[in-house]
This record gives sequence, C-alpha cells and structure tokens, in this order.
Amino acid sequence: MQVSVIVIGDELLLGQVTDTNSGEIARHIAPYGWEVNDVQTVGDEAHEIRRAIDRAFELTDVILTTGGLGPTKDDITKRVLCDYFGGELVEDHSVLENVMKVINAKGFKLNKLTAAQAIVPTSCRVIQNRVGTAPIMWFERDGKVLVAMPGVPFETREMFQSEVFPQLREKFNTDVDIEHAVLMVTDYTESGLAEKLAPWEDSLPPYLHLAYLPKPGLIRLRIDGAHNDKNFIISEVRRATAELKRILGDAILATEDLTPAQILLQECRKRGLTLATAESCTGGNIAHEITLVPGSSDVFVGSVVSYSNGIKTGVLGVSAKTLNDNGAVSLPVVREMSAGALRVTGAKVAIATSGIAGPRGGSEAKPVGTVCISTSVITTKGTLSRAETFHFAGTRQRIIESATTRALIKAVKHLRSV
Amino acid sequence: MQVSVIVIGDELLLGQVTDTNSGEIARHIAPYGWEVNDVQTVGDEAHEIRRAIDRAFELTDVILTTGGLGPTKDDITKRVLCDYFGGELVEDHSVLENVMKVINAKGFKLNKLTAAQAIVPTSCRVIQNRVGTAPIMWFERDGKVLVAMPGVPFETREMFQSEVFPQLREKFNTDVDIEHAVLMVTDYTESGLAEKLAPWEDSLPPYLHLAYLPKPGLIRLRIDGAHNDKNFIISEVRRATAELKRILGDAILATEDLTPAQILLQECRKRGLTLATAESCTGGNIAHEITLVPGSSDVFVGSVVSYSNGIKTGVLGVSAKTLNDNGAVSLPVVREMSAGALRVTGAKVAIATSGIAGPRGGSEAKPVGTVCISTSVITTKGTLSRAETFHFAGTRQRIIESATTRALIKAVKHLRSV
Repeated sequence: MQVSVIVIGDELLLGQVTDTNSGEIARHIAPYGWEVNDVQTVGDEAHEIRRAIDRAFELTDVILTTGGLGPTKDDITKRVLCDYFGGELVEDHSVLENVMKVINAKGFKLNKLTAAQAIVPTSCRVIQNRVGTAPIMWFERDGKVLVAMPGVPFETREMFQSEVFPQLREKFNTDVDIEHAVLMVTDYTESGLAEKLAPWEDSLPPYLHLAYLPKPGLIRLRIDGAHNDKNFIISEVRRATAELKRILGDAILATEDLTPAQILLQECRKRGLTLATAESCTGGNIAHEITLVPGSSDVFVGSVVSYSNGIKTGVLGVSAKTLNDNGAVSLPVVREMSAGALRVTGAKVAIATSGIAGPRGGSEAKPVGTVCISTSVITTKGTLSRAETFHFAGTRQRIIESATTRALIKAVKHLRSV
Repeated sequence: MQVSVIVIGDELLLGQVTDTNSGEIARHIAPYGWEVNDVQTVGDEAHEIRRAIDRAFELTDVILTTGGLGPTKDDITKRVLCDYFGGELVEDHSVLENVMKVINAKGFKLNKLTAAQAIVPTSCRVIQNRVGTAPIMWFERDGKVLVAMPGVPFETREMFQSEVFPQLREKFNTDVDIEHAVLMVTDYTESGLAEKLAPWEDSLPPYLHLAYLPKPGLIRLRIDGAHNDKNFIISEVRRATAELKRILGDAILATEDLTPAQILLQECRKRGLTLATAESCTGGNIAHEITLVPGSSDVFVGSVVSYSNGIKTGVLGVSAKTLNDNGAVSLPVVREMSAGALRVTGAKVAIATSGIAGPRGGSEAKPVGTVCISTSVITTKGTLSRAETFHFAGTRQRIIESATTRALIKAVKHLRSV
C-alpha cells in the first residue's frame, strides 16, 4: 500500500524547521508492507496545498498531511481542507472538551486562540488528539482517504501510531509479507564495503534488496525481502544475513538496529561492568549518547568533562608533567584520563577523549580533527588500556560526532577482545 | 526568485535518513530574496525522478536535486538525467583528476566504483566537487536550469554555497530588497505569545510578516520585510523590532538567532566569568550544547556528570544526609551539586540538574519529567544560588532537551539579575 505525505508550513520551506514526521511515518509503516511513495513540502498557501492534494490523489489512495493546524494566523490548512472537501466550519463540542482536557493537563488555561481549535469542517470525521490541541481530521472521497495531522513531531508520532495507522490498515486491509534484517558494520567506507560485497550482491535473487545507510563511523546495512510466501521470505532473509556475517566477520558490530551507545551498554551489562567517560573534545557528548538510552543508569555511573587542563590534573589526576611534555592532545594524556576516570568514578570501563574539534586550535603536527581516544578496562589481569590517534574531517559538530561514535565502537571492540 | 528542490533516495522515503539539505539551501538563499517554492522527495526510481523534474520545471526556473549520485548500485540519478537531457555518459578526465585528489586527501585509494564517479553526461557542465567524489552537474533547457548535487549534507552545503548559488545568482541576476530580524523569546507558550501579540500583529503593514518558530523552551520570532525601497524596509523592520522589544521586555532573551548556549557564553564572557556544569538527568547534554559552540573553551572549564549517587557525594561533595533526607531529585541536592561544581572546577558560574527523564523511575510525588535545576554564581557578595523544580513532558529525549534549554536560560537570567 502506498502513501503520499504532504508536509505543510512556511517554516519548512524557509529551512527554519526540519521535517522529521514523514520519516517517522515511513519507518512505522514499513514493517506492514506499506510505503511512502512521495513527500511534498509546501508553504502555508491555499493554492499550493490544493495543488499538492490534487497531485497526491493522482498517485496514491492514502494522503497524510502534517502541519498547518496551529492556533496562529499563518496556519490555514483547516480552511483549505474545508473548501476542498466541502461542508462548513463549525465548533465541535467533543473536540472542545478534548482541547480543555489537554490544556488543563499541561497546567495552562484555555484562551480564545486555543478554543478555536475546536472548530472543524463538517465534511470530516474527527480523531481526538490525546496529546495536543489540534484535532486530527479524516476525509474521504471516491474511496480515497486524506488524514490531516498536526505538525508537532511528538503529537504526530503518538496519534499516527495509536489511532490513524490502525484505522487506515483496517480500512484498506492489505497486509503483504515482508521481512528485513539490519547489520551494523564498522571498519569500512561505503564504497569499500560496496566493492567487497559486489560479487555477493550481484547474485541476490530479485526478491532480496540490499541498502547501504552510512552514518559517521558506521554503516547500517539493510536486507529487505518481499514475497507472497511468508515462511520462504523469512528463511531467505535469514540465509542472506548468515552469508553477510560470514563475509564481514568482526566488522559486524551488531545484528540489530542499535546505536553504538546501546551496543556498548549491552556489552557492559552482559559482563556486569560499570562505565564512565572522561571527555575533553567530545565535551560530554559521549555521556549524552549513553544517557539517551533508557535504563542506562544501571551501567553508566558518570563522566568528567575536563575541558580545561586544570580539571584534567585537578579532578582526573593527569600529571602536569605528562601534559607539559606531550600536550593535552596526546596518547599519554588520554591514557591517564581513562585511568583517572576509573579511579574517580569507581567504574570498571572508561573511555577518554582529547582532540581538536576546530575550527581553530589546529597546528601542522596536530591539525583540526586530530582526536586521541583511550579505553581502559579493569580485568582479573589488571587494568588494560588501549589508546589510539584518529583524524576526522568536517565541521566542529561532525568531528565531535565522529569522535563520539568511534570512541563508543572502540570500547565495544576492546570489551569483546578481553 | 523561486527554486524547486528534488530530494532523491529510497533511504529518505523509508525514513532511514532525514533530509536537511533543502532546509540548508532555503536558509542560505533567503537573505538574497530567493526562496524554495516546493520540495519533492522521491525514491531511486527513474519514472519518479522524471515525473518530479517535469513537475518542478512547470513551477520554477531553477531546480536543485540532491542525492542519488553515490557510487553504489542503487544510485541512478546520473543515468536518469542523461536520458532526460540527452547526450551520453563518458569519462571526464578533469573529473577523474578531481576524484583522485579528493580520495588521496582522505587517505583512501581509488577503487573501480569510485572511479566511475568520473563518468558524466555530455549534456551537462561539470562543477568540480572539492569535498567529495560525486561531480556536480549543471543542465540547461529553454533558459531553465537544473543542478544535480550529491546528498551528503556536508558536500551539498559546501559546494552549494561556494559555487552553485553564486553561479545561479549570476545567471538570473534578480536581487530583491529584503530584510529580517529575529528575537528569541522565553516565558511564553506559542499560543500565549500569539494572543499577547495579536493586536500588534493585526496592525502590521502588508510588507511585514511575523513568524513563530517554537523550539523546546524558546520561541524564535522572525520579522520578515520585503519592499523595493531598501532603506525604507530596513527602517521598517527596525521599527517593528523596537516595538516588539517594548511589548515583550525581559522575555526577549536575545535579538539574534543564537542558541541558549551561545547566549550564556556571551553573558559569561562579558563579565569575565568561567562556567561549569554538574549534570545528573541531562547526562552531559548541557556540556555538549556549550562545547558545540566554537571558542567555548575560553569560558567553559568542564563538567561532572554525576549519574550515580556515588559521584554526587564522592566527586561533587553532596552530603549523604542531604541525599538520604530529600532524594537525588530535590532542590537541596541540586543546590549542593552546583556549589560543588564551583568548588571542584574553580569556575565562577555553575549549572546543576537532577531529574527523572523516564520512561521509568517516576513516582506519584516525583513523576517522570520532574527536573530540579540550580544555578550558582560567585559574586562580590558571595555565592548566590537559585534552585527551582520544573515539570517537562514528552519522551526521554525531549525531557533531556527541555531541561537542557531551561537550565541554560535560567543561568542567563540569573547572570543578568546580579
């Protein structure tokens, strides 16, 4: 089943906001054999919205719109839909009740603008929005459906998954047998991996498809299968996955779609080890990636972000001589940082980083993008540390992200090898 | 001048990657009076790409495509464009030279797949890609232009800004007089702010437009003006900005498009104060937001991410009694955390957080989303601390982000008041 998405809002065309709703929708419907065929982003202009709807109805039987339902003047989607599908705009009491419930739960009072959210076209069926004030509107014409949803990502996700999509599946009743597997691969560039896999990929049957999704420091390899025999496609995807594992060996970091932080937390948890970080150039981003994972607190104890040299010596116990002799961005310093993190936090595994994220601060010997990373693990044989220097390219943000990913992967590999 | 953008790639329709290129382009061209009229996202399918180009040429004279130029099998944009505009695919020696230069700079060796990047349609003019291997292709037909760019955000940004857009401006030579101003507003919800500003907004002349761009904990208010008299529109935008400042007073955090971290760094720098954080539930994200800002190291000294209670007591010196009596998520604990951060790091300003980011760990008294935030500042009158409890809604990630923004804003306000 194919779906068109229309993303509405001047702020998107101006680049002030990035659309994440269409991606959320696509990821959610894929396992059911549904796919987004087409995404159009248009401004808050009546003729643009109408044109986009006309076009989407030519392409697919289901259209989802997001955005343009806010209480402010620039949001016109509701009026445009009422013109398009007919009927008139009237206040709906059940919607008003719902708006008041949502507003009260947030501790706000109802004002005029928000109350106007309860005015809806008579030509639609309303799905009450449990998590926001903009009602969701379901329109039908000639067996085709358009559902208008708010633009706030949290509201769209919540209501699409719990109400809109289940109702669409019921109406169209078209489940197909699809199966997929994901491998997280490290140690390869995208083209290096494509070259390595070319002979194998060429031999794939038409019902299997391989996709490369590079992220900084990691490639997500996705095998998609589609077939009318469910058991057959499940076993075929399994067979292909097993072959890839044989070809790529240790370069496969995980066989699920996990972040490096999630993989590292699993490895620590398996071994009953606690984790800490000591971060200079990554500035707390490794700790942030780890603590984004729910339940990370049973493994992760904390971090010392030692941006200044004073904290490297004063809190982490890096010796002033090591700093003076080698500079802050050096293997001896990150080794002392990861050892210091173990001592200060009591953790059994530590990651330390020190580098030059730029745009200034580089030199000929240590250009911008130079990052030293050390991992330390307390084992029965004592504390084992491994330090290495990397060179990352790109903006400050990209260097920080690449160093973060690389540090997490390095810790996973270190743990797996001891 | 209006531009259509076509974003190409199955990975985008599958939701595996989020398009940020169209937004980057829109933000870059806006100050020149150019705007993105329409964004289409399509898969790696020849007929979809052709249909999108047909449609875009109906709407605008300039089409920008991003993506589908990679070395792997699934990328077909180059072949489709060659079919569309005519000519044939041949190896271009200047492109091959450039590909080798880029590859060598990254420390990789040329392989067959990457060498194939040098094969381009004879119907295009090539713009050499200084930062990647996919050449940029400029096609013309009936005075209209299509430029095909790679999908890698870093490459698109770099090459669009330095080469593609300057060449487009030269060709179409259509500069209009526009002016804009941005105000960062706190203390209001979007609808509360809209209600407050409604009378003023109603009185705006047609050449001025106000846009609300809510971010967690902050609303970016943008005034856009367009007029054929340059001096007039500059003074009109200035007048409108001054009026908004009078209406909103202290709720205006900044009169530039800055992040809360950038605003806080400015405030510290102005006063010659250094900054540190002590983070529990925000897990290093405040430090990360601060260290994303280039040059933050002259103000920011570091952070203690005290995820476990052991680090709260052992490193930050929070008393075990305070923890036992009040629990980790409490005003007395965050007060001791921010004071401890000052002591341990030697900074003059500190921010501390402790809360429940969820999804588990909440209780009736302290539900998920409860976050205590304390800011401490060393002044001539001694150390002043201010602690407050907040309640944030949404997912774990959203609660972490909201607490981060709120903590940074709280520190700005604290500094401005002492």
